[in-house]
Amino acid sequence: MSKNKLRIIPLGGLGEVGKNMMVYEYGKNILIVDTGIMFPDHDMPGIDYIIPDFEYIKENKDLVRGIVITHGHMDHVGAISYVLEEVNVPVYATPLTKGFIELNLSEKGMLDKTSIQTVNAGEMVNIGPFEVEFFHVCHSIPDSVGLGITCPDGLVVHTGDYKFDPTPVDGWPTDFAKLAEFSGRGVLALMADSTNADKPGWTPSEMVINDSLDKVFRSAPGRIIVASFASLVSRMQQVIDAADRYGRKIAFVGYSMTKNSKMAKKLGYLEIPPDIEVGLEAALNMNPKDVVLMATGSQGEPFSIMGRLSRGTNKRFDLIKDDTIVLSSHAIPGNEEAIYKTINRLFRRGADVVYEPLAGGVHVSGHANQDEMKLMLNIVNPKYLIPVHGELRHLKQHAILAEESEFPTENVLVIENGEVIEFEDGKLEIKDRIPGNYVFVDGSRVGEIGPSVVREREQLAQDGVVLISLVLDRKGKLHEEPEIISRGFVYKHDDDDLIEQTRQKIVAVVENTKGDLHDELVHSLRSFLYSKTKKRPVVLATMNFL
Amino acid sequence: MSKNKLRIIPLGGLGEVGKNMMVYEYGKNILIVDTGIMFPDHDMPGIDYIIPDFEYIKENKDLVRGIVITHGHMDHVGAISYVLEEVNVPVYATPLTKGFIELNLSEKGMLDKTSIQTVNAGEMVNIGPFEVEFFHVCHSIPDSVGLGITCPDGLVVHTGDYKFDPTPVDGWPTDFAKLAEFSGRGVLALMADSTNADKPGWTPSEMVINDSLDKVFRSAPGRIIVASFASLVSRMQQVIDAADRYGRKIAFVGYSMTKNSKMAKKLGYLEIPPDIEVGLEAALNMNPKDVVLMATGSQGEPFSIMGRLSRGTNKRFDLIKDDTIVLSSHAIPGNEEAIYKTINRLFRRGADVVYEPLAGGVHVSGHANQDEMKLMLNIVNPKYLIPVHGELRHLKQHAILAEESEFPTENVLVIENGEVIEFEDGKLEIKDRIPGNYVFVDGSRVGEIGPSVVREREQLAQDGVVLISLVLDRKGKLHEEPEIISRGFVYKHDDDDLIEQTRQKIVAVVENTKGDLHDELVHSLRSFLYSKTKKRPVVLATMNFL
Repeated sequence: MSKNKLRIIPLGGLGEVGKNMMVYEYGKNILIVDTGIMFPDHDMPGIDYIIPDFEYIKENKDLVRGIVITHGHMDHVGAISYVLEEVNVPVYATPLTKGFIELNLSEKGMLDKTSIQTVNAGEMVNIGPFEVEFFHVCHSIPDSVGLGITCPDGLVVHTGDYKFDPTPVDGWPTDFAKLAEFSGRGVLALMADSTNADKPGWTPSEMVINDSLDKVFRSAPGRIIVASFASLVSRMQQVIDAADRYGRKIAFVGYSMTKNSKMAKKLGYLEIPPDIEVGLEAALNMNPKDVVLMATGSQGEPFSIMGRLSRGTNKRFDLIKDDTIVLSSHAIPGNEEAIYKTINRLFRRGADVVYEPLAGGVHVSGHANQDEMKLMLNIVNPKYLIPVHGELRHLKQHAILAEESEFPTENVLVIENGEVIEFEDGKLEIKDRIPGNYVFVDGSRVGEIGPSVVREREQLAQDGVVLISLVLDRKGKLHEEPEIISRGFVYKHDDDDLIEQTRQKIVAVVENTKGDLHDELVHSLRSFLYSKTKKRPVVLATMNFL
Repeated sequence: MSKNKLRIIPLGGLGEVGKNMMVYEYGKNILIVDTGIMFPDHDMPGIDYIIPDFEYIKENKDLVRGIVITHGHMDHVGAISYVLEEVNVPVYATPLTKGFIELNLSEKGMLDKTSIQTVNAGEMVNIGPFEVEFFHVCHSIPDSVGLGITCPDGLVVHTGDYKFDPTPVDGWPTDFAKLAEFSGRGVLALMADSTNADKPGWTPSEMVINDSLDKVFRSAPGRIIVASFASLVSRMQQVIDAADRYGRKIAFVGYSMTKNSKMAKKLGYLEIPPDIEVGLEAALNMNPKDVVLMATGSQGEPFSIMGRLSRGTNKRFDLIKDDTIVLSSHAIPGNEEAIYKTINRLFRRGADVVYEPLAGGVHVSGHANQDEMKLMLNIVNPKYLIPVHGELRHLKQHAILAEESEFPTENVLVIENGEVIEFEDGKLEIKDRIPGNYVFVDGSRVGEIGPSVVREREQLAQDGVVLISLVLDRKGKLHEEPEIISRGFVYKHDDDDLIEQTRQKIVAVVENTKGDLHDELVHSLRSFLYSKTKKRPVVLATMNFL
């Protein structure tokens, strides 16, 4: 019988390694850490979102002992229903994270079927052969944890998303003492967040946002509308506190913002002084100078409140004179264009807009910068460093930071999703690679749409589609005029000159072709349309014979 | 007879005001400044590029006296062939800019038909009633100018793209003395670059790049491959100088990089020490430590040299061990995703990649930052400030900077493309708005494809297309099995279960429909496919009757 070994496999993510899911395996036991989703890139049109390819889990479902979720962000929790559908095992999380999991599962009608165990930061839980210690970390959502995962092979520290904010909004800093304690015990491997590996120094404290908010609240002549992420509970708290300081009432606007604030308040993660919160209707009827609205839409999403306000299509309320809008979030790479368009539209409709980089302190990152990453490495002092949570360029940079910290280069392992690392007698090896990327969620179809369909969509988007339909008699002559329909190719679909010329071309091809008419038609029309337009629309032909 | 008035109209640009084209008009005389193109946003699939909507020029072609191009970047010169096709008037430019215009026109076969006059910075030229003084400005391409445009109504200073680099690579700073002289004469209006209105302080000098290049050249163990824009002549010079300092040879790679470097060298804007430049073939055969390659592809363009190297599909050469790649350019907003993917791929293929923000000094902006913008305003001291060259958010911010400089708020005019400003007795008024946005260049079609076709393309990209073709007999019964073709919708086009179910649905609809069969078919299939997939493909139906 072969000896049990600790194996770790990062899964999922869109270029980001182990961002959405990590597998810890010891003998015949699997522990899953996080089950997140990602949003598609621009070259994946129509795709709703992306979930990890967890084929490996499906194939080994009997081995799975539990799922630990480190915090309530979508990229760590959003795919939980998909995983639970395959393996109905207990889920472990801190109270606020549990709240987010419950909201997610109740939308899928799966809440009743799931066992979610509350584990507070500082507590330990046994999951199969793993002793999992939850330790508090600062991040851009409260109640985040990192994990100390102990099995007979040793202790692995999994940071999760973290930063070392000395003055967090909730007054609860990252648990240095626990990290030092781990270090004292001896750490086999550190799986550490690399998101900001290219950002020097320290991430500013969430506290700096208070000053920026003060500046806005002091001078805003009318309503203040703050746009942020619906999961950014600490930002909600800061806006509530600023409203309190400046005598304004606050209303949460929109489904997710309302739902999340209600849940966070109920669980005690959001402290709202009496009489500060009002409903939207009440807020809209108050003096604008007395009101703050908090909504989503900081990423330029067209159907968010901000997107609709920028176009004048928001139903329940519109912009009014002297509105000040604060975009309190970073641009997620790829969203810049949409965000700036939204900002320009808001300006055009008369609002004043406060955003980065103009107001440097309206958002800070939730992730450790370079010096914090070095500090983490120094405190934990592991035998191996495995940079995770970042694109390859971030992991490489994390490795350079380790080298700068005199960490032995040969003990830093940059791996990619699906690469299996295995420990034997305290020594790490990279084993074979398993499928570990992602699958597309496209409407109600999960994993059915692959890259080839997405490439077809891109081609349709580039050049449009031209469809021709013929009816031929027994002699191979046209029974009637060829029908031509196009989309995304010409402006007037019916009577465009080009369409008429195309019709004549079809008639000529039908008359003159000796070989395979279908192939010849498609081929000739593609050349013909390219010669006329320098575009290559998808040409589809149907031929019916009498 | 009505009195002649000075009118100024910004045209073109993708949200950026007056970026690509400006019209100066006095009486029956029009002067065009710049004729540029823009690249499309992500929500404009298939569009190649965008040119200003210059319908106004076409309608008044007899009035046009000349075209002045301020510098050789595509967003200021790229549309010149389109404008010259409509109005064949003299073009005025500095020598290097003339070189870029000639390259552009020779590709279109229009060089012989065009009169291009060389005007050096510091010189003046009369164009109709306008006295146009060219003054040197620093920018990220040499030989850039701003313009002093004098007509009987007064002097307008048009900065063009500029910055106040005290130590430019070519040793030629922005012409402060001329700006001061304008100020002494009295300036009616300042049309000033707003690109970096949200960036504090001063743009760093191009000189800082030398230090970063030194750092790379000192330590690179093998080849160095620098990626930048093909128009960034000063960056070429800096890389040549670094190659010289460190005893490496340089080869320019790719069509536009080779073409532009050759032209700039011929005109004396690129100084290459003897024996430093080699051909690509020679470079590939040298010791990697002795070589620098300079290529395009810093924006993640898939078919650029960098894009192909990152995928291993470059024909003439591939990455080799110890290659160091320097991306020496900012990400143009919207390109971040593509750039980071390219960087990750390059890392994956074994290269070391130096890029922002890791190496802060591998690129600097070509535009003035906030303090420079204030300095420009203070030196020129105009009656009116009209912020141009920026999105609305930048223009608004430029106005705030003016306010901070104690400039009278009522004399700052934030206008948008197509808005006509008119001076009467030294007083400015905003007149009616004319069409002044942009038109799409789509293959060989200019302005024929509008937003509705682009929306069709987006819909095709989101959900794909399903085409059904029926042949019905005289009784309205199906003559044969319905044919179904799809693209971008299902993976297996022919034998997918869903397609078979769709076929059955069609048969049922044909049998049961009393009313308009085509409408009923499309409607039913859309509902059916949505219920099955939660996607809404474009459904096209052709029906042929025997």
